Amino acid sequence: MAAERMVVIGGDAAGMSAASQARRERGPAELEIVAFERGHFTSYSACGIPYWVGGDVPERAALIARTPEEHRERAIDLRMRTEAVEIDVPGQRVRARDLATGAESWTGFDKLVVATGARPVRPALPGIGARGVHGVQTLDDGQALLDTLDGTEGGRAVVVGAGYIGVEMAEALLKRGYEVTVVHRGEQPMATLDPDMGRLVHTAMDAMGITTVGGAAVTAIRTGADGRVRAVVTEDAEYPADVVVLGIGVEPETTLAGAAGLPLGAYGGLLTDLSMRVRGHGNIWAGGDCVEVLDLVSGAHRHIALGTHANKHGQIIGANAGGGYATFPGVVGTAVSKVCALEIARTGLREKDADRAGLRYVSATVESTNSAGYYPGAAPMTVKMLAERRTGRLLGVQIVGREGSAKRVDIAAVALTAGMTVERMTTLDLGYAPPFSPVWDPVLVAARKAVAAVRAAGM
Amino acid sequence: MAAERMVVIGGDAAGMSAASQARRERGPAELEIVAFERGHFTSYSACGIPYWVGGDVPERAALIARTPEEHRERAIDLRMRTEAVEIDVPGQRVRARDLATGAESWTGFDKLVVATGARPVRPALPGIGARGVHGVQTLDDGQALLDTLDGTEGGRAVVVGAGYIGVEMAEALLKRGYEVTVVHRGEQPMATLDPDMGRLVHTAMDAMGITTVGGAAVTAIRTGADGRVRAVVTEDAEYPADVVVLGIGVEPETTLAGAAGLPLGAYGGLLTDLSMRVRGHGNIWAGGDCVEVLDLVSGAHRHIALGTHANKHGQIIGANAGGGYATFPGVVGTAVSKVCALEIARTGLREKDADRAGLRYVSATVESTNSAGYYPGAAPMTVKMLAERRTGRLLGVQIVGREGSAKRVDIAAVALTAGMTVERMTTLDLGYAPPFSPVWDPVLVAARKAVAAVRAAGM
Repeated sequence: MAAERMVVIGGDAAGMSAASQARRERGPAELEIVAFERGHFTSYSACGIPYWVGGDVPERAALIARTPEEHRERAIDLRMRTEAVEIDVPGQRVRARDLATGAESWTGFDKLVVATGARPVRPALPGIGARGVHGVQTLDDGQALLDTLDGTEGGRAVVVGAGYIGVEMAEALLKRGYEVTVVHRGEQPMATLDPDMGRLVHTAMDAMGITTVGGAAVTAIRTGADGRVRAVVTEDAEYPADVVVLGIGVEPETTLAGAAGLPLGAYGGLLTDLSMRVRGHGNIWAGGDCVEVLDLVSGAHRHIALGTHANKHGQIIGANAGGGYATFPGVVGTAVSKVCALEIARTGLREKDADRAGLRYVSATVESTNSAGYYPGAAPMTVKMLAERRTGRLLGVQIVGREGSAKRVDIAAVALTAGMTVERMTTLDLGYAPPFSPVWDPVLVAARKAVAAVRAAGM
Repeated sequence: MAAERMVVIGGDAAGMSAASQARRERGPAELEIVAFERGHFTSYSACGIPYWVGGDVPERAALIARTPEEHRERAIDLRMRTEAVEIDVPGQRVRARDLATGAESWTGFDKLVVATGARPVRPALPGIGARGVHGVQTLDDGQALLDTLDGTEGGRAVVVGAGYIGVEMAEALLKRGYEVTVVHRGEQPMATLDPDMGRLVHTAMDAMGITTVGGAAVTAIRTGADGRVRAVVTEDAEYPADVVVLGIGVEPETTLAGAAGLPLGAYGGLLTDLSMRVRGHGNIWAGGDCVEVLDLVSGAHRHIALGTHANKHGQIIGANAGGGYATFPGVVGTAVSKVCALEIARTGLREKDADRAGLRYVSATVESTNSAGYYPGAAPMTVKMLAERRTGRLLGVQIVGREGSAKRVDIAAVALTAGMTVERMTTLDLGYAPPFSPVWDPVLVAARKAVAAVRAAGM
């Protein structure tokens, strides 16, 4: 019997990264690791689902980084289709249900990792349960959607929501031969951008043949006598649909943690310290989509469901639970995506985030190209930069453009982390050669314009 | 008559950026601007020459950012084919020669900008003057090479030197249908990388059908009775050649500045302060390929001939000469390039640079991919990272890989500028989505491995 037992709730990115890292730190004789996963899969890339649905990724198996068997080979006692239903914090035990048999039992823990992820927002609309209405949060969801698509090849698809999942699913459905309409509530698609940048996405999606309908609140899903979806209904109109994909975001899955009295933040996510320990609980960690993270730019907590954070959290939890020491300082809010050939990126604060944080700012927007203008295939890129008005500190960057645009946001992500001013950014020694950049990288051009805006505002 | 006169020596990136920026700051009534350029062109992209020679850029005119006429329209008195031949520092005047007539005259200045660029290293070898032996430093050079290529379509080309210019010219000549051999002195191509990373470039060039011959010192150019090149001769062998391109680097063109008593550094480049003023001379600025720059990582001065620095220098000189204030803090040594589909990037220190700077370091090399492994077209990328052994401070990064590799070096360029440790880098919030990156960006994976190396070294 091992000296200690660690229980992990949730077998995806954060939970299994934590388990794997803890195992690397400590062998089975020192630490027993038990993990509960209610679904059919472990350690998979939910971010890859749109590309699997769209056909770019041919096989579901490709999205699975590590199978249950592979985890078990590393001496992790992984129990699939087993749902944790209660955390007894003072008793240091977790009650779990075998979903096949319904049998329940308690498992004691010395250390606990809560990695219960997020659940898709699924409004209680009439008809929301119709056949042909799909979320795309899990591999099971993706498989169900693919089963529907295989039955309705080439019809009309309506995507509800125009965030990352919405626009990526629009691309996927377009590739599958569907006529695609994206219905969303915002002024422009990609509400994670300022509306002026979202407008560029809107225009590009139009050109791709994807219809976007903004300012539209869905009121019902119209269903046929056969129980299948017929249309998406808004206050003003009705959009015929053979298939509907819900991409209206996610919220932290913290029902269990909340019931156990663990501390939740304003967005419903678990609150942790920098070592990913749940506040006030020395032997309970949490990470991934079920926690709130510190935004290093605004100083506020946010909920950001993103696989790359979940993996980092898991790695840090595993290091700490294994007896080492590691911290997750926080995020700056970087996200990248694409719709067909259009790349979309953001980091830091939007205008409304800055307003909310009480920061006065200036903004600068420039149009440039991804390579030297004379290089073949040079294509447009628009960069918007926000800087604090008084200090010139970088607050955020948004980029919309063709190939080579999105990952340029990393320049700003590092600069935000370092607390750089836009003035300092103007002389950054960024890679230059004609195939990769104009002689002034678009980010540098934006920084120069932001410096001018800061100076003008100071006069 | 204007209140003051600024004289600019050299009409390319640094000189004309300085002139343009000064003009933006001050109108013709306040500041007269006279610029001397000995060649036929102004403000062109020398970095673009390989792509013009290779046929990617169809027209020479595309490489010219601004013509002499365009400069003159902005009230810059630009004198083409006019070579500055003497700087009289105490007398505040420049003697210049009209290359068409041979006539010389003095022009007084209140402010002087030295932007004389660099000259290609051209060793005094027997036969170096043969027809068919070309440098590729200027547009005139590029045109001469193209004239030769048009006469020898599809023969054998030898490139001497395997730095940026060498490998880019190898690609260009391959595209033009030549059988290409690159002869160079180093252990591996791309001596701006450590040899282990250069080996990857070597292997990739082999696969492209470009022969590279390392450790080879050229002793002569064999010439036919017709005065045309026949072969490149080394100590050990002879490489038949219908055309030879010299890509063995450049050195600062500071003959004029040196003769005038302006201060030169160890590499022969002008020494300036952060405002790009020549040391000890309040009214003389210098920038571009003729100056030495401060390396922010090692603290030493270096000579780096790169258009992006020249443009920044020019902009800063113009701002200062125009009465404003701007500084160029220094470089971190970022450079990117490609040979066909292989991308090559570096920033900061190599192992031998760290040795020279007296820094003890650890290194970590990882192989990853440019996108999620399951995403179509995922291709290999190798990242090498150096960190200071005692502190964990990032010292340098080198990247060799396929599409999307090179510009990732910007992450490290910003981190170096900020003085980040590799530990801090492991949790950088970099853009993640399957088309753009594995869930752990290759740079983060390298940082993790570097942290482990720092810890192991400390034990």
